[in-house]
Amino acid sequence: MYSEKVMDHFEHPRNVGEIENASGVGTVGNAKCGDIMRMYLDIDDKGVINECKFKTFGCGAAVATSSMATELVKGKTVQEALEVTNKAVMEALDGLPPVKVHCSLLAEEAIHAALWDYAEKK
Amino acid sequence: MYSEKVMDHFEHPRNVGEIENASGVGTVGNAKCGDIMRMYLDIDDKGVINECKFKTFGCGAAVATSSMATELVKGKTVQEALEVTNKAVMEALDGLPPVKVHCSLLAEEAIHAALWDYAEKK
Ligand code: FES
Repeated sequence: MYSEKVMDHFEHPRNVGEIENASGVGTVGNAKCGDIMRMYLDIDDKGVINECKFKTFGCGAAVATSSMATELVKGKTVQEALEVTNKAVMEALDGLPPVKVHCSLLAEEAIHAALWDYAEKK
Repeated sequence: MYSEKVMDHFEHPRNVGEIENASGVGTVGNAKCGDIMRMYLDIDDKGVINECKFKTFGCGAAVATSSMATELVKGKTVQEALEVTNKAVMEALDGLPPVKVHCSLLAEEAIHAALWDYAEKK
């Protein structure tokens, strides 16, 4: 049912945790299943994302997509990070079952919310 | 949103894993969210559950309810374990938000499936 990459990122999620004094923090909820996720970004003077951490109460698909999403946005500029869609994340994971696609939206939305928070703070 | 007990069992889940040569194994899926869970039971000659382990791809609520459910059925007889409902598990966790009640069904159904598997094997 799940690809090897999904299982790997579910069982060994990257970048779980919090960032103190983060440049941006985004918290989003999933209307469909009631799950929540929080994303923390550390962005330097040049607008590059140095660190990205997440916490979620969501399912394995939410964990795997967030883990992959944090890997994809690290080292990117804010502009580039805005282009990391849930579609790109799913592709990087070799796909997700259709019933789980909504879970992958949590990561995209949380990153956008954290980038928005960063922009507002500046 | 979540009780202290839910957060505790989510962050430190009890009895995660597999049992080799288990007396009964039950795998169930949640139609509402597409998550899956597998429950392993080790039952002795007297029909007492000595060990109970689970694995799930489900969300934090599924992890917390399964963790609590495995604690509740350990040491119980098969008959007693059949009476451990998702309601009892939720009460032991000081409740769950309504949107997450369907997640708690995974644990109950997986235990029932594992007990059924045990009964069939005998
Ligand atoms: S949302 Fe699927 S088990 Fe909770």
